[in-house]
Amino acid sequence: MNTIEIIKKKRDGRNLTEEEISFIISKFTTGEIPDYQMSAFLMAAYLNGFSKKETSYLTKAMLYSGKVLSFKTIKNRKIDKHSTGGVGDKTSIIIAPIVASVGIYVPMISGRGLGHTGGTLDKLESIPGFKTKLSVKQFENVLIKCGASLIGQTKEIAPADRLIYSLRDVTGTVESIPLVTASIMSKKLAEGIDGLVLDVKTGSGAFMKKISDSEELAKSLVETAKSFGKDCIALITDMNQPLGNYIGNWLEILECIEVLRDGKKNDLTELSLILAGIMIYLGNQAKSIDDGIEIAIRILNSGKAYNKLLEIVEAQGGDVNFLLNTNKYPQSKYTFELKSDEDCYLSNVDTYEVGMAALELGAGRLKKEDKIDYKAGIKFFPKISDEIKRGQVIYQLFSDSLEKIELAKLRLNNSLKFSRTKTSNKTLIKKIIN
Amino acid sequence: MNTIEIIKKKRDGRNLTEEEISFIISKFTTGEIPDYQMSAFLMAAYLNGFSKKETSYLTKAMLYSGKVLSFKTIKNRKIDKHSTGGVGDKTSIIIAPIVASVGIYVPMISGRGLGHTGGTLDKLESIPGFKTKLSVKQFENVLIKCGASLIGQTKEIAPADRLIYSLRDVTGTVESIPLVTASIMSKKLAEGIDGLVLDVKTGSGAFMKKISDSEELAKSLVETAKSFGKDCIALITDMNQPLGNYIGNWLEILECIEVLRDGKKNDLTELSLILAGIMIYLGNQAKSIDDGIEIAIRILNSGKAYNKLLEIVEAQGGDVNFLLNTNKYPQSKYTFELKSDEDCYLSNVDTYEVGMAALELGAGRLKKEDKIDYKAGIKFFPKISDEIKRGQVIYQLFSDSLEKIELAKLRLNNSLKFSRTKTSNKTLIKKIIN
Repeated sequence: MNTIEIIKKKRDGRNLTEEEISFIISKFTTGEIPDYQMSAFLMAAYLNGFSKKETSYLTKAMLYSGKVLSFKTIKNRKIDKHSTGGVGDKTSIIIAPIVASVGIYVPMISGRGLGHTGGTLDKLESIPGFKTKLSVKQFENVLIKCGASLIGQTKEIAPADRLIYSLRDVTGTVESIPLVTASIMSKKLAEGIDGLVLDVKTGSGAFMKKISDSEELAKSLVETAKSFGKDCIALITDMNQPLGNYIGNWLEILECIEVLRDGKKNDLTELSLILAGIMIYLGNQAKSIDDGIEIAIRILNSGKAYNKLLEIVEAQGGDVNFLLNTNKYPQSKYTFELKSDEDCYLSNVDTYEVGMAALELGAGRLKKEDKIDYKAGIKFFPKISDEIKRGQVIYQLFSDSLEKIELAKLRLNNSLKFSRTKTSNKTLIKKIIN
Repeated sequence: MNTIEIIKKKRDGRNLTEEEISFIISKFTTGEIPDYQMSAFLMAAYLNGFSKKETSYLTKAMLYSGKVLSFKTIKNRKIDKHSTGGVGDKTSIIIAPIVASVGIYVPMISGRGLGHTGGTLDKLESIPGFKTKLSVKQFENVLIKCGASLIGQTKEIAPADRLIYSLRDVTGTVESIPLVTASIMSKKLAEGIDGLVLDVKTGSGAFMKKISDSEELAKSLVETAKSFGKDCIALITDMNQPLGNYIGNWLEILECIEVLRDGKKNDLTELSLILAGIMIYLGNQAKSIDDGIEIAIRILNSGKAYNKLLEIVEAQGGDVNFLLNTNKYPQSKYTFELKSDEDCYLSNVDTYEVGMAALELGAGRLKKEDKIDYKAGIKFFPKISDEIKRGQVIYQLFSDSLEKIELAKLRLNNSLKFSRTKTSNKTLIKKIIN
């Protein structure tokens, strides 16, 4: 078999065999196929698509490129959540402590920032000392001790996905249903879980802008999970504005603390509680989803989930002093604050542009090699349909570079629409698929 | 500007601006854009195409990635010829001396053998002492002295093309008309020429097998040349059989001498005179193409062009004694001669296979590291539709290895078709595009 011939076959729109897909994935994983051939292949796959069979071959090849976990010593149900990625989406860091507090195990393998969206790993690594690179044994130890552990893909788990994910991020090949499906399922199937909740985003800040595309992805993911014998429920949720109010790695940790410790209530809190409720239901600790949500609310209000977060952070080497005293964290050199010069309503947000603005500020990677500035980001206050009074702060920018602040301002100024009259707000939960 | 967004824009089939294309090319040339982003961009460009404007922007960006020659001290017109490559195509070595004899300057930057096709540089280097690696200053000196100079691509000229070509070669992105156009024109425009004649091959020995593809490429090349203010005429010419009778580096030099000195007449002579005639017309030394061809015939018959070849060879360090006494040149150890065992007509040639047979004999490189055997090759006598009498020689093979002769025989036996009845011959000039 010959790499160039396989690239040409996909380039010319023909279907690949299981052997050809397995060849590409395994030789890329061992480094025999270089990045530049894989990225040409990924672009051809993006543009010419994959059949259902090819998607399944790809998932299988990526899953078995590494170790598949089982955690046989843990008798309780093991449930995870996965989001397709959005702007300001930090629900994992709120959900894992809530669900683990109920006696369900959450072995969560998360990803890094991809395109304009943030990544749970980058957010956690903004906590000084927090280790996302644990061995399988260490992962199991934290899981047994705390009931939840949040790590990055280890070299042993779906190594093909890790390599492909970082390449897709910088080659414009992210938004592809077959590539997204294989990427998500190869990692999740390797976690040794019994069930999975999927948060499939839709809207201007999601990879899928149209609800029909999001639904197609959700169905493809749920079907794939079920074909592997896993319980699976998907929500289609709104990403037409940032989730919560903070965007940027440390800023998002800060917002999780505000939700878990201080009782902050916003769309982030609402979605976290619903997702946690479904997990509690799938974990056989509630009779219904509604019952699961009630339990999640009680756990949150009791402060147990906040303490659980501290416990997890400590178990993974993070310095909890920064969580206990958030003002000890380094501050950005420059801040810019936009205030409204009139009374108005927020009517529309181009959330992709908000995500890109955060990237420009340093909160994400424009190139694979870029280093993240953990403290950089955006505080974004109003929600669509909210009334804004003259003089009220709309957003604040944080960065060590004035030039970056200017670039972010440009992006944001073009992305926000205001109106004189109140517009309709956005429904957070669009659909449930199971 | 952001590389990923430019890749996405082309991925989504949108047209790029001059600034965006210039950004991609210049940052790739300096190494700031890595191979894996460039190859994703190239695949998107391959699949979604480039408009005429984008092709011109790409050519410009690649042209200005390096040095652009001007030869301001030369007042006369500077005209070059470029061929898309074929088997037995040695017209450059006949044309340059003819055109230079009329007072037109020919600053010719040529290539090496590629795949099954030969390269002018390799042919010239079969002349002992001939130097194709000249500095820009030496190139200019030979040009001023002789009116023509034939060299290889220097590192200073169109470095972006050299980098992009080696990436396209291994990522399935070679056969793209806009990418081929920019690759050819960026090099030719760097020669500081006023006009260009293009010989776009079509048929079994050409890179473009279908005449419609060759025509599309020819139009794209002519339009691009004109967008830079250059005079340009393209011919679509037949490559369904080798051009001339000899294939192999020194053998091709020999055939050029037979044409220039001894008045040999065949399809090679015919095409060389037409191409030279167009160059003389574009060089303002003839009122029409027909007039230009008449002048070319007179120059050839006068012996001036043969003397001019000797002059150029001497100026570039070549030992003219081998041209004056061609029997002094080393001979291959082994010769094989195929004679017809019946009266018949040659009806078809798979010219790709003939080119590959010459490669097998040692006339080209099967691997990048291979050393060329300059004296190896094929003398191939009949043209399609020619009558062949029983006992008449069809071809002769020359090599230092009997094993290689056997491999070449295998290739040739599968590539030639004979018939009892006369078949139609091939039209040499298919079309003229200007």
